[in-house]
Amino acid sequence: MPAANTAPAGAELAALVTPARLAEFFAPGSIAVVGASDTSGWARFLLASATTAGFSGPLIPVHRRHKTVFGRPAAASLREVGEQVDLAFIMVPLEAVEEVLEDAAAAGIRGAVVLASGYREVGEDGTALQDRLLAKAAGHGITLLGPNCLGFLNAHARTAPFALTIPPPLVAGPVGVALQSGALASVLLSFARAHAIGVSTLTSLGNEAMIATADVVDYLVEDDHTKVICLFLEAISDPFAFAAAARRADQAGKPIVALKAGASQAGIAAALAHTGSIAGDDAVVDAALRQLNVIRVGSIEELLTTSAVLGYTRWPRGRRMGAVTTSGGACDLIADRASGEGIEIPAFAEQTAIGIAEHLPPFAEARNPLDVTGYFLANQRTSLLTPADSALDLAVDDPGLDFVLFSGLNLPDARPPDAMASALEARAAWLAERIASAPIPVIPIASTCVNLSDYGREVLAAHGLHLLGGIDLGVRAIGNALRWLDGRGRTGLALSSVPASPVQAAGTWGEDDSRALLAAFGVPLVPSVRVNAVEAAICAASRFGFPVAVKISSSAIAHKSDLGAVALGLDDAAGVAAAYEKVVRAAGEHPIDGVAVAPMRTGGVELLAGVTVDATFGPVLAVGLGGVWVEVLRDVSLRVLPVDRAEVLRMLGELRGLQLLTGARGSAAADLDALAGVIAAVGDAALSLRDSLVSLEVNPLWVKGRQIEALDVLVITKELTS
Amino acid sequence: MPAANTAPAGAELAALVTPARLAEFFAPGSIAVVGASDTSGWARFLLASATTAGFSGPLIPVHRRHKTVFGRPAAASLREVGEQVDLAFIMVPLEAVEEVLEDAAAAGIRGAVVLASGYREVGEDGTALQDRLLAKAAGHGITLLGPNCLGFLNAHARTAPFALTIPPPLVAGPVGVALQSGALASVLLSFARAHAIGVSTLTSLGNEAMIATADVVDYLVEDDHTKVICLFLEAISDPFAFAAAARRADQAGKPIVALKAGASQAGIAAALAHTGSIAGDDAVVDAALRQLNVIRVGSIEELLTTSAVLGYTRWPRGRRMGAVTTSGGACDLIADRASGEGIEIPAFAEQTAIGIAEHLPPFAEARNPLDVTGYFLANQRTSLLTPADSALDLAVDDPGLDFVLFSGLNLPDARPPDAMASALEARAAWLAERIASAPIPVIPIASTCVNLSDYGREVLAAHGLHLLGGIDLGVRAIGNALRWLDGRGRTGLALSSVPASPVQAAGTWGEDDSRALLAAFGVPLVPSVRVNAVEAAICAASRFGFPVAVKISSSAIAHKSDLGAVALGLDDAAGVAAAYEKVVRAAGEHPIDGVAVAPMRTGGVELLAGVTVDATFGPVLAVGLGGVWVEVLRDVSLRVLPVDRAEVLRMLGELRGLQLLTGARGSAAADLDALAGVIAAVGDAALSLRDSLVSLEVNPLWVKGRQIEALDVLVITKELTS
Repeated sequence: MPAANTAPAGAELAALVTPARLAEFFAPGSIAVVGASDTSGWARFLLASATTAGFSGPLIPVHRRHKTVFGRPAAASLREVGEQVDLAFIMVPLEAVEEVLEDAAAAGIRGAVVLASGYREVGEDGTALQDRLLAKAAGHGITLLGPNCLGFLNAHARTAPFALTIPPPLVAGPVGVALQSGALASVLLSFARAHAIGVSTLTSLGNEAMIATADVVDYLVEDDHTKVICLFLEAISDPFAFAAAARRADQAGKPIVALKAGASQAGIAAALAHTGSIAGDDAVVDAALRQLNVIRVGSIEELLTTSAVLGYTRWPRGRRMGAVTTSGGACDLIADRASGEGIEIPAFAEQTAIGIAEHLPPFAEARNPLDVTGYFLANQRTSLLTPADSALDLAVDDPGLDFVLFSGLNLPDARPPDAMASALEARAAWLAERIASAPIPVIPIASTCVNLSDYGREVLAAHGLHLLGGIDLGVRAIGNALRWLDGRGRTGLALSSVPASPVQAAGTWGEDDSRALLAAFGVPLVPSVRVNAVEAAICAASRFGFPVAVKISSSAIAHKSDLGAVALGLDDAAGVAAAYEKVVRAAGEHPIDGVAVAPMRTGGVELLAGVTVDATFGPVLAVGLGGVWVEVLRDVSLRVLPVDRAEVLRMLGELRGLQLLTGARGSAAADLDALAGVIAAVGDAALSLRDSLVSLEVNPLWVKGRQIEALDVLVITKELTS
Repeated sequence: MPAANTAPAGAELAALVTPARLAEFFAPGSIAVVGASDTSGWARFLLASATTAGFSGPLIPVHRRHKTVFGRPAAASLREVGEQVDLAFIMVPLEAVEEVLEDAAAAGIRGAVVLASGYREVGEDGTALQDRLLAKAAGHGITLLGPNCLGFLNAHARTAPFALTIPPPLVAGPVGVALQSGALASVLLSFARAHAIGVSTLTSLGNEAMIATADVVDYLVEDDHTKVICLFLEAISDPFAFAAAARRADQAGKPIVALKAGASQAGIAAALAHTGSIAGDDAVVDAALRQLNVIRVGSIEELLTTSAVLGYTRWPRGRRMGAVTTSGGACDLIADRASGEGIEIPAFAEQTAIGIAEHLPPFAEARNPLDVTGYFLANQRTSLLTPADSALDLAVDDPGLDFVLFSGLNLPDARPPDAMASALEARAAWLAERIASAPIPVIPIASTCVNLSDYGREVLAAHGLHLLGGIDLGVRAIGNALRWLDGRGRTGLALSSVPASPVQAAGTWGEDDSRALLAAFGVPLVPSVRVNAVEAAICAASRFGFPVAVKISSSAIAHKSDLGAVALGLDDAAGVAAAYEKVVRAAGEHPIDGVAVAPMRTGGVELLAGVTVDATFGPVLAVGLGGVWVEVLRDVSLRVLPVDRAEVLRMLGELRGLQLLTGARGSAAADLDALAGVIAAVGDAALSLRDSLVSLEVNPLWVKGRQIEALDVLVITKELTS
């Protein structure tokens, strides 16, 4: 089938995965389940999921032999269904999938999910199979999810062609989800259910033959039900598409929260084994996600709790938090966790404190974080509101706070006796009203991470309240949300507009060429003279003034000092003469261009600014302080290129050794702004080499106050195979 | 009342809080609730708690006026109860407490809990009240818990004089709990219930007037029902008693897991506000807890999950983990989290892999961590066991593993239809049997942190299985448990046996005295000569050989280099002469003893070894590398003294800059063992100053290969007020 082996045209493909087309795909009114049988666990799950989602459209089993499946009449093939089918969920064995796709095309079906495994994830043969599957679907104008995927659910559209458990009840809500491991869906949904975190559309992405992560993100950005996007990623296979989608999400004000596997080498191996994806170096992934303002989290629980903060509460305008609790222990835990997240807990304004004190017993203090104590339990309540409620009522008007964390609502396991239930529900109503009218956001939080009871869920739902799952996760999630808010509007990974530089030869560049490249981008270089005789070296040294450095000039030697072909701190002519002989001798058989003489730079701080090429993200800039900082401490900041001066300033701000640049230990403070400009220019120089770039490194990049100079430069390029 | 104001004798007090006496105290057969009334929330909670715990003994309300309370006949005072009372739970207002205690004594009651607040936590007046309360209780031979405390529960003894919610059902189990914030008890119990983590005795410590943290730890160490001890601490008020108890716990093989508040300054302030305790510097607390092999955790959830690992599973002998899961995503998450905990996931032995492969679909790989995939769902099962079970069966015999994490048991929300329930229960029985017979521990884990369903709890309980609450918490908890196992048997904070050194004068010591002190403890010192004339300085320098260092010798100047009273790297006589004049001039009006001349030490690495006195823990040793390592990176390891050579070696191992000592960057590897010995001697020298010690610092302590020398020493002592 030669036609099927031809890659589908880009435009043709793109039309099948637009947000509009996916909105149709993710809301099928009728579903055929091809390959369903009474003995198939997948089919049983899918039927149960449809029920849980409240699917009311036709759900038609299709099976070659069985006349009925789970008591429903079955069609023998998609061609024989006899009514309109919006989506074919294909759970036949691998070898039968293509024929079913033909049937689907014949029946005019526009969407298909393919469950079967054995495609790209098993290697070359599988990849060929997958390419053919894609070509066939595209050729027939069928939007395809999978293969090797469990399907999706759309809680607002009440549909769930999903072949795994959806723990009931399924709550519709603001969190859109896309997962590169479908089996995690049940896990994620079970945590979401426990905390009444509602989802909009949840997708198992499988092998992403046609519908890829970025397409789903684009769809969720357009989807009105979705306020926050929640991803589980094993690999980012198309970083440009992903970056573009992330930028659109940021612009649309829809946060992306991602759990990206592969923080460990073992993690990478695990991801490789079952998706066949190639995961990039984790530190680069980390940098890239930060540049895209995608909030990276470390667990399913943190993923969903962060999404809940962003999806259910008004967004705080700053980091000054008030906290109202009913226990000193809770105050301690909140304060400790907040400190870890860079959240401030300022003192209450005097007026707030005075007001709150009226609701406290004499031995308690009206301070932030606030413990109203359990004192009021000693006597029957006279007011509807607890002291915590009254304190909240006052704290939201405190001019020094950006938001209030409220840990004063405890929900019982079951409906208590009527009088208590009425009191609780009246409190909930008051809280909901007060939270809605408060000048600053209020974030209600449970003390620990346990499931809401059915009654608790009811009370919250009745009043539109949300309760975060515990202090640890909740405050961590608020920290994540604040980071997202801080990062808005500066999503990077833009396409570079740097003009191309000519590339003379592949391999290690000579010193003159390397220096010329950097000079062309405005990177200041230490003066240097190339000589071919001892006398010329002495003469050059005298002109620069002692001390000087002498090193071999040879494109055949990448690491000169390892060979002993560098001599530093030469104080006089004799020293220069000896050094000349030494570096030439050290070069041995290597062809040399001569010997370079340059003035020594002393004092100040040495940095390293290097660009390498990441398999996934392309050119990546690393910036660090020299010496132990890089070698022992790995104190390096990374960014996917291009970066501008502002971004490099943020990189410098991330260095643990930053203080050395700002004047610690008696050094002159470096001109950080100028330095950032120079480093950005180093990045541009690297980008100008386009696909020839292997690496470009300035090491050391010397800074002393406002003086900045590249002391040594190494450029390596490769032959382009075209 | 002069008698009551006298502090009770130590022995008298100690007899009231022995493990045996507390075993009696924590298992009262009859309880009087003094001050209970129908309108008191405390009383309502206490009655409900007793019911939840299954308390079957007499529970007698005592109230001056009410004839009945919650329908029970009430006594007018403890003197009029008319039957034996083991424990008086006193919930009367502050001012009535002492009278009730007299009544209790008259009635021969041996135990009391005091709920009232307003004691030590409110300042001086309260402290006086509390002292009087303690004296009265001790005088009458009454064991007292509180004041400012909510009581306790003992799940095995089915008793719960506890004035806050105990979420039912209360599960009896291996986790003993003591909390310095009683209100956290409900929070903690609600998380414990969610994961079927059973408690033995749980105590709200309150102000610890008589029964202190260490006493409860001692009791739990002796308590046969308790396998692991779980603490929430705001302050460690008696570090010696705590250390002794921690040592006994370690010797008894009972891990202590502690959530200690105060990691943030705000946290410290919060703790101060409501307990009146003084919290030590958090880094010192951290070091002290590590020395005591107390596992410090960051959240309630981690506290309990760590306790569950240690209380419910067999302890692993090492860090090599097998992982069996049903999803690639779970593998990713496990691998990432394990990497963060230093847990290895080695490849399966060939035989294991071959055996496992037979249970996998063709496209899946038999690797560790293992994803058995959901493939078996495609067809009805023929075996009782799932592929995950079969893989577990094989993995436990893998000779290269220390334990297996099993993420293959999913428990449904409710009892499924009979056939499925029987199958699940048969699997659970098989798993329990296999786990019990396996040569290595198996740790079953849920995928995410959600409550067990009632049915799930039943199935687990019926077979004695335990399921950790999610991958993130579970693997973190296993890491904590492994750290505890690693730390066994080296609990420090011993009493020092260092002999006392004579202390001549308070204040900053002169150089000769300082050097003599360190020399007496075997600390090698750089040679140094004190001179009073330029010529003598030059002469001394010539004898040492150039270059030399010259510095002022003056006990009036603690920080010589800040004044410019130090000159380094002097190469010749002229330099020495100039330096002599300079440092004398720099000393200005300060009285001086002369000028010290010493040879320069170059190359090698400079460290700092300093001892300061922590308000809680006493003398604390800080070790770090000099320069940026300490000043910019705060790369310092701390220990409460005394320490031995082995402990200092562990300190050095904690330094991020360790590589500089082991030969990174071309330096000679330092003789770490000798270095550790020298640093331990510095610690001993500090201890020898006893309570006079203010600080003792060797900075720099110079190391080059096997050469080790203290280059500068500063000792400061204070006048003892006695």
